[in-house]
Amino acid sequence: MRRCRDLLRVANLCHLLTRHYIKLSVDTINPHVVRLEYAVRGPIVQRAQELDIELKKGAAKPFEEIIRCNIGDCQAAGQKPISFIRHVLSVATNPQLFRSPEIPEDAKLRAKRFLDSCGGSVGVYSQSTGVQVVREDVARYIERRDNLTSNPMDIFLSSGASEAVKSILQLLSTGRDGSGRAGVMVPIPQYPLYSATNAEYNAYQIGYYLVEADDWSLDVDQLEEVLQQSRDKCVPRALVVINPGNPTGQLLNVSTIQRVLEFAHRHNLVVLADEVYQHNVYASDRRFVSFKRVLHDMGGSLAKEIQLASFMSCSKGYMGECGLRGGYCELVNFDPDVQAQLYKCLSARLCSSLLGQLTLDVVVNPPEPGEPSYEVYQQEKDSVLSDLKLKAALVSESLNAMPGFSCNPVTGAMYAFPQIKLPPKAIETAKSKGMAPDFFYCLSFLEDSGVCIVPGSGFGQVPGTWHFRTTILPSVEQMKTVMQKLERFHTAFLNKYS
Amino acid sequence: MRRCRDLLRVANLCHLLTRHYIKLSVDTINPHVVRLEYAVRGPIVQRAQELDIELKKGAAKPFEEIIRCNIGDCQAAGQKPISFIRHVLSVATNPQLFRSPEIPEDAKLRAKRFLDSCGGSVGVYSQSTGVQVVREDVARYIERRDNLTSNPMDIFLSSGASEAVKSILQLLSTGRDGSGRAGVMVPIPQYPLYSATNAEYNAYQIGYYLVEADDWSLDVDQLEEVLQQSRDKCVPRALVVINPGNPTGQLLNVSTIQRVLEFAHRHNLVVLADEVYQHNVYASDRRFVSFKRVLHDMGGSLAKEIQLASFMSCSKGYMGECGLRGGYCELVNFDPDVQAQLYKCLSARLCSSLLGQLTLDVVVNPPEPGEPSYEVYQQEKDSVLSDLKLKAALVSESLNAMPGFSCNPVTGAMYAFPQIKLPPKAIETAKSKGMAPDFFYCLSFLEDSGVCIVPGSGFGQVPGTWHFRTTILPSVEQMKTVMQKLERFHTAFLNKYS
Repeated sequence: MRRCRDLLRVANLCHLLTRHYIKLSVDTINPHVVRLEYAVRGPIVQRAQELDIELKKGAAKPFEEIIRCNIGDCQAAGQKPISFIRHVLSVATNPQLFRSPEIPEDAKLRAKRFLDSCGGSVGVYSQSTGVQVVREDVARYIERRDNLTSNPMDIFLSSGASEAVKSILQLLSTGRDGSGRAGVMVPIPQYPLYSATNAEYNAYQIGYYLVEADDWSLDVDQLEEVLQQSRDKCVPRALVVINPGNPTGQLLNVSTIQRVLEFAHRHNLVVLADEVYQHNVYASDRRFVSFKRVLHDMGGSLAKEIQLASFMSCSKGYMGECGLRGGYCELVNFDPDVQAQLYKCLSARLCSSLLGQLTLDVVVNPPEPGEPSYEVYQQEKDSVLSDLKLKAALVSESLNAMPGFSCNPVTGAMYAFPQIKLPPKAIETAKSKGMAPDFFYCLSFLEDSGVCIVPGSGFGQVPGTWHFRTTILPSVEQMKTVMQKLERFHTAFLNKYS
Repeated sequence: MRRCRDLLRVANLCHLLTRHYIKLSVDTINPHVVRLEYAVRGPIVQRAQELDIELKKGAAKPFEEIIRCNIGDCQAAGQKPISFIRHVLSVATNPQLFRSPEIPEDAKLRAKRFLDSCGGSVGVYSQSTGVQVVREDVARYIERRDNLTSNPMDIFLSSGASEAVKSILQLLSTGRDGSGRAGVMVPIPQYPLYSATNAEYNAYQIGYYLVEADDWSLDVDQLEEVLQQSRDKCVPRALVVINPGNPTGQLLNVSTIQRVLEFAHRHNLVVLADEVYQHNVYASDRRFVSFKRVLHDMGGSLAKEIQLASFMSCSKGYMGECGLRGGYCELVNFDPDVQAQLYKCLSARLCSSLLGQLTLDVVVNPPEPGEPSYEVYQQEKDSVLSDLKLKAALVSESLNAMPGFSCNPVTGAMYAFPQIKLPPKAIETAKSKGMAPDFFYCLSFLEDSGVCIVPGSGFGQVPGTWHFRTTILPSVEQMKTVMQKLERFHTAFLNKYS
């Protein structure tokens, strides 16, 4: 830092003498931006894009298409949008369609209710926290889900869940270095939004390992240990938990959530519950239980005190409307003055997309039995979720059948995160190329088979172990193909490096 | 800070003894968030909302409706959306409408081209920088506007222009305090996004006054002076210019832009050109000239060196699609490595709304002569712009006819920013209530007449002068009413406090 600044002074002096304009460089821009990494769109994904362009130009490759298993982008993987969502959006956008017989009446009613609440057009700014009826509908959705009260004023709408997560992390970051710096506990492996945002706001990241041998659960003893180790570097402020898990695909059980909440209470931590996969549960004997519900059931001072921020999105679940950028955050037990500061901060970005807000409104307020669109909506929803369930089982079973692979059951979310035992020769080869071994494995698989997966090093893993994340989003047929391609590649890879 | 930290330690100790959970408070959250202010949605606007709710509940007030002149929200003020934009959006969202005879063929073609480029659905994530055809269309739009080449790779799409502005300011902020802190030159009066974002990223704000007596132009001698005065507090990094001006409503002339660019070149400043009002020019004898065009015409090392970021939005102009959140930024002369860092940073928020991107695509690629929608599009566009021109003249003329008011001609954007001479007794009364005098004036006007305008103190002004910002967005009839109400209120106000 100091060296940088001295250089800058010298540079400024030179400039005065020579009148040469000095541009920003990677050494002089915001160092937090430089430090930020986001693996889901990293170099392997860029290489996949290049290969795609080469294929389209007619280049000969050992594969005919790129299959993208790198990102939770449902519709890019071929999933069809839910018709009812699109009906509502199209009529709200183009009100002449209120006269069209092709738009179902229940879609028109929802569009009208939204337009009446926001001021008559999807082209207006809403309140920074979102259109009032949507906040009310979200509250009712949470009430039905948890059988608990929810206050619309504690809910704000955001551009996907990502923006809401960033707002909360920004709120509790202090930016300072040294012992006053905010500490944020983040799982390893994690969804890289968290590490990226911590880098962006200069929060100190306290990584804790999810326990692979225990279905990617949390171990409170380990949480205590890493927290204590961080005390001289930061003031621990927050704990991030992703449930169902990304990239790990696990659904946490209630007793784990209870222990985690007790831990958070002992240490004054704000809990960030990333619950965007709450519709994506595949274990037949289990269901999603929210952090808020568990918190309430624990009772006592804990239930009244722990600050909890829960995130939800339109981008996942059965709807997969990533591009429409709808999301929400519910705040529980936040100080009203702090909440007011957060909402003030949101106002400078004006509001999230009104059509994203409307999408969310449909998701939390879907057609009811008896409404014209109910049956089709249910069919479409069930079809997506039952396919995902099939693929969750297919992928973990296929992976576990391959030598050197072990994969926990995919009980939730949209991902598998298998461990691979790599032969020492492969590890050496990777290192000689300056690559992490799992990166080398994934890149080789891409070049060989056209399948894009993301190495575990992008999400974090126990040192010396190697993983990758694959989504389960391509069609059932394509996922079968992916598994066949992987088996063929993996066999050849083992032969080559054993 | 230190005191805060000590308190926190004591609090932590108490907690260990009592097991009492300590919540975040305004004293312990991110101090940059606490410092952030955003006047366009400040207390007067909140009061207007309360009054609106009271009115709707049947309360008796000296007015029958709230007229909102506080925010550049065109459609909230009654402006009709451009039909073609809505046709394109509705068919892209709901592809069954490709069969509908009610959607014009040119709208279908644009929707199809967009869907083909993004992967077939508005529900997918795009590249973080935006859908490729939109970036290409933006580049062609800039080429036509400036008669200069533009590279799609230098353009990124954003959630309104606000997000792009925040990204650039974040990129060049260092967050550090003391002499290594980034300095950002911002006009006074300014659009408060800039002060809010500088607070958020802890950039040092170097305010420079726009010269009211010279039609809100920039004075380079003053720029030099404030820059020199800031040198011990920061490393000046950037200069923000809003043209046409917000809140000031002026169009800058080319020679001013030239002098400003020379100044930026002398001092290694990145120029942020907020050009979101480029379609809003009302002076009959003048037209919008971009910073990029002026930069190019100046030639020499300057044209090849100055880093320029130009911002544009779908929210203003004649389209006023605020809620759809479309915007772009073009980067000129940025170091490719710096640009790569910026684009990496964008990737953590995934992408802006696809429907916002599509809206922008229509704005930069409107119907051409001969296409079915051309005539209606032109009529709708001309109608909005000619009304705005009428209101620009109406407002400045009406204001200048009132005693104690002076208002520069509104040559661009959507605002007037008149100066008011307030009687000493009014100033004293305001101070006795703990209010800034212009805040007191605006609040009194709201309570008396139901018109919501924003005091100059929210944008900044020369100390001892008082202003407010009013939009010119309500209908011509409503703007006449606003001016009549203001005249009546102002006369009574002067009588009361003289």
